[in-house]
Amino acid sequence: MERYRIVFSGSGGQGVITSSIILAEAAVIYEGLNAVQSQSYGAEARGGTTRADVIISDGEIRFPKVNQPNILVCLTQQAYSKFSGSIRPGGLLLTDSHFVQLERKVDACQVELPMYETIMNAMGKPTPLNLCMLGAMLSLVPLVKTKSIMRVLDEKTPADFLEMNKAAFEIGKKLVAELGIEPQELA
Amino acid sequence: MERYRIVFSGSGGQGVITSSIILAEAAVIYEGLNAVQSQSYGAEARGGTTRADVIISDGEIRFPKVNQPNILVCLTQQAYSKFSGSIRPGGLLLTDSHFVQLERKVDACQVELPMYETIMNAMGKPTPLNLCMLGAMLSLVPLVKTKSIMRVLDEKTPADFLEMNKAAFEIGKKLVAELGIEPQELA
Repeated sequence: MERYRIVFSGSGGQGVITSSIILAEAAVIYEGLNAVQSQSYGAEARGGTTRADVIISDGEIRFPKVNQPNILVCLTQQAYSKFSGSIRPGGLLLTDSHFVQLERKVDACQVELPMYETIMNAMGKPTPLNLCMLGAMLSLVPLVKTKSIMRVLDEKTPADFLEMNKAAFEIGKKLVAELGIEPQELA
Repeated sequence: MERYRIVFSGSGGQGVITSSIILAEAAVIYEGLNAVQSQSYGAEARGGTTRADVIISDGEIRFPKVNQPNILVCLTQQAYSKFSGSIRPGGLLLTDSHFVQLERKVDACQVELPMYETIMNAMGKPTPLNLCMLGAMLSLVPLVKTKSIMRVLDEKTPADFLEMNKAAFEIGKKLVAELGIEPQELA
């Protein structure tokens, strides 16, 4: 496989760090890949923007930070403004249409999905937005199998949230399937 | 403040990643510091050793990985064997006496605490061991205030676990207080 450099961004409480850890663990434990996951906190955390980085590769990973992501997810306008310029040409930009209004074209495939709205309609609360996002992202770029994510959820999710999180992941996959967007080949 | 390089290590499921994230968030959001938190997954994750790195500083942090920790926590023998050689001279090595048998002297302050045993006696389950460890560590090296940790717990912990986690943190603090170990000045 090639090396995937992924940045999840949004605001504190949206679960972007959790989703990045779930992805990294699924890749490593169930698919035999290597992964590094990190977050920098600083002025961003105080200002409300959270960013989590994941690098996935079948080779060794020496530097754990992502400079130019080939997959960038933005769940707030502030995160979009801050990070969308850094996307690798030919990459994938995934945004939530409730939180982010696209302001410019980037040299990447831009996919805007009503994840927040769909989750609120289905579940009445925004908590599992991060799993919905992960389901959508992995339908667009099938880095790891759904089965691997589900196994991580089985192990890590408190019992009360397990079914909700699994359902949210499936909702994310379905959103992509319904839009007829094909899985991406990333540059 | 100086720069603190912290490595939490143990096995998957002991919560070392969670505790590292709680510490980083407390430092940044409530104490105005900078922090970087990361974990590498690879052969380690499959073999069962988990390691989470945190760097805390009032200055800019350029490289997010810890090579030589000045605080190293080991919650399994395997983690101890693997990482204890990397500790910075004059640093702090904190181990759990149920899981780790010390095998050699390192040029660091070695503190062995019965965290697992105390948590099992008090709570009947090992889940909040990571909070107990964090309470003990922060009593030994008061990097951030207890109040800041509690505020992060208030925001991040599912309601069912909040009181248990807070109590476990206090148990860790008390373990250090009872042993009469003074807060450390780290090299």
